[in-house]
Amino acid sequence: MTPTPLFKTVVIAGVGLIGGSVALGLKDRFLAERVIGFDVSAETLTAALALGVIDEAQLEPGEWLREAELIVLASPVGSLGQLAAQLAPFAGPDTIFTDVGSVKGPLAKELAYLRSYVPGHPMAGSERGGVENAQAALLENAIWVLTPDDRTPIGALKRVRTLVESLGASAVTMPADAHDQLVATVSHLPYLSALALTHMVTRDERLALLAAGGFRDLTRVASGDPRMSRDMVLANREALREAATRFQRSLEHLLELLDTPEALLEAAEEGKRTRDSLPVVRRSLLPPLFDLVVAVPDQPGQLGRITQVLGEHGVNIKNIEVLAIRDQGGAVRLGFATLEEMEQARELLHDVGYRSRTRA
Amino acid sequence: MTPTPLFKTVVIAGVGLIGGSVALGLKDRFLAERVIGFDVSAETLTAALALGVIDEAQLEPGEWLREAELIVLASPVGSLGQLAAQLAPFAGPDTIFTDVGSVKGPLAKELAYLRSYVPGHPMAGSERGGVENAQAALLENAIWVLTPDDRTPIGALKRVRTLVESLGASAVTMPADAHDQLVATVSHLPYLSALALTHMVTRDERLALLAAGGFRDLTRVASGDPRMSRDMVLANREALREAATRFQRSLEHLLELLDTPEALLEAAEEGKRTRDSLPVVRRSLLPPLFDLVVAVPDQPGQLGRITQVLGEHGVNIKNIEVLAIRDQGGAVRLGFATLEEMEQARELLHDVGYRSRTRA
Repeated sequence: MTPTPLFKTVVIAGVGLIGGSVALGLKDRFLAERVIGFDVSAETLTAALALGVIDEAQLEPGEWLREAELIVLASPVGSLGQLAAQLAPFAGPDTIFTDVGSVKGPLAKELAYLRSYVPGHPMAGSERGGVENAQAALLENAIWVLTPDDRTPIGALKRVRTLVESLGASAVTMPADAHDQLVATVSHLPYLSALALTHMVTRDERLALLAAGGFRDLTRVASGDPRMSRDMVLANREALREAATRFQRSLEHLLELLDTPEALLEAAEEGKRTRDSLPVVRRSLLPPLFDLVVAVPDQPGQLGRITQVLGEHGVNIKNIEVLAIRDQGGAVRLGFATLEEMEQARELLHDVGYRSRTRA
Repeated sequence: MTPTPLFKTVVIAGVGLIGGSVALGLKDRFLAERVIGFDVSAETLTAALALGVIDEAQLEPGEWLREAELIVLASPVGSLGQLAAQLAPFAGPDTIFTDVGSVKGPLAKELAYLRSYVPGHPMAGSERGGVENAQAALLENAIWVLTPDDRTPIGALKRVRTLVESLGASAVTMPADAHDQLVATVSHLPYLSALALTHMVTRDERLALLAAGGFRDLTRVASGDPRMSRDMVLANREALREAATRFQRSLEHLLELLDTPEALLEAAEEGKRTRDSLPVVRRSLLPPLFDLVVAVPDQPGQLGRITQVLGEHGVNIKNIEVLAIRDQGGAVRLGFATLEEMEQARELLHDVGYRSRTRA
């Protein structure tokens, strides 16, 4: 039996990575009867339809908007105000607006004319943008900040909050300016510092050659869409400048500690404690799996053989990762929920000729 | 037929993540007849023996070192000099020393008394240290810097270079001080700036809550072993201070660009170009695979069923990743080398009842 959807008609205005992921979440979880995609790009809409992300596509604002119970503004942050202004005149009296913009203070002022607007910001993203990378899972377990003010209708806030939780995210409510200060620190400043680091590598091939995994991870955000990133930091530049000042002080302090090894060790330990306890880090570590690394020749059917043997004996593989693929073969990491399952898997695979190694 | 090994007896002194990975590479590729592990920790040696990383274990220096053709010094960078001093008196006249320390200049002076020493630094690591995380694949495709000077015996350099290439890494030769300046920029400064960012989040739970994937990736290095990280930056503090000065200038410049949106966009575009063209990034993107996302219920045997169907039809899965695991099911990403294989897989899986989606 299909559950009653939360909304009849939802409009996703801007069908990119986030808009597309919201749309997929709505469809996967039967939260909307109909999802209409609105975008300035016909190409994007065609792709979104083909990928099954939206049910209908619209290139121009019009009377069709009257039926929307909810309009999700999901264009890049620099154009959200303009997008709302385009759509609002066609909306019905009970249409709820929400948005996914990464900066909330300036937008709240710009959209103050809307009767029913619930400002929002899902803290999720990827350096691979666009609707073709959209997935409902992007929003699952994400923090989704809502920044209502005194004029926000309580009924609209409730419905958007229910939507957020139904998509598998966690709604967190705070004032817009508090949000903007926080994201300056955890998102915009990290982007700018990654950009600054990346620029140091430009025009020196030896540096590029030596850049290893740590540098790659650290500068990942610099590979995002340049215009979206630019708009994001620009929209929040005041809070960003403040955060940068604190960051520079923090870095200066660490440079001074280079003369006091014991204090530097304490700082390194404190940093590890803090990072290891970040919810986003803890989440990515959980649930703890018991890993088995299996050596496999690079031939068709290897994964089939491995997983078939385990499946036949009721051993559930919770995670699987191909560690290395080369002509002479590779290795596959299998994750199991319990030590017993891992050991059972190891024996079963040994019996059919696979070498494996456990990983703590 | 087993090929002739490069070395008869190799000693791995310090059986941690890197030392253990070298040992596994030696064994997997038949590069050494015998790998002896030396470590100050009996526990580490027991684990290394149990994991099959080493053939023999030694807790104390002694006559057994006479047989070593190669000694790989692989303790944390702060104790490499002391480690060499412990072992050198027992080494034979033709024993080659090499090391994996992340700073080369100071060490070269400290080990100048060794007749046959080839300084090295494999640019590989993981925030999960220890022998239990060691794997030969860690060194494959890694850059492995060698910093010989005028006193390095040419024969020893040749043999270490052959070893490096045989382990699947790429040997790059440069002077020690050039190496130290480069790693200050691509490794030590990134660590310090990640630590500075992480410290900004300490003692503010709201910040920790909002920290998302970007922040997690950017601060990953701050979760490494604090003592090893501290020793690493301390050993290279002069070059690090210089790199930090250049970084602060680079960041200041970007903050100024917040007033000139067009120039900031250009800077963001240049950053993306630079990062996307980093060898370490390009490698992690290659080979380009054709991806299929398959929805699966969380029941034993699902992966077996999927991979069995494809294996039976000769479709080779080149990569596999579990995207999401929840009570109600999840999704698996399959990577194929060709579009044709991906489409064939999609049809085969459709025929046995799986829903799937392509990903560009």
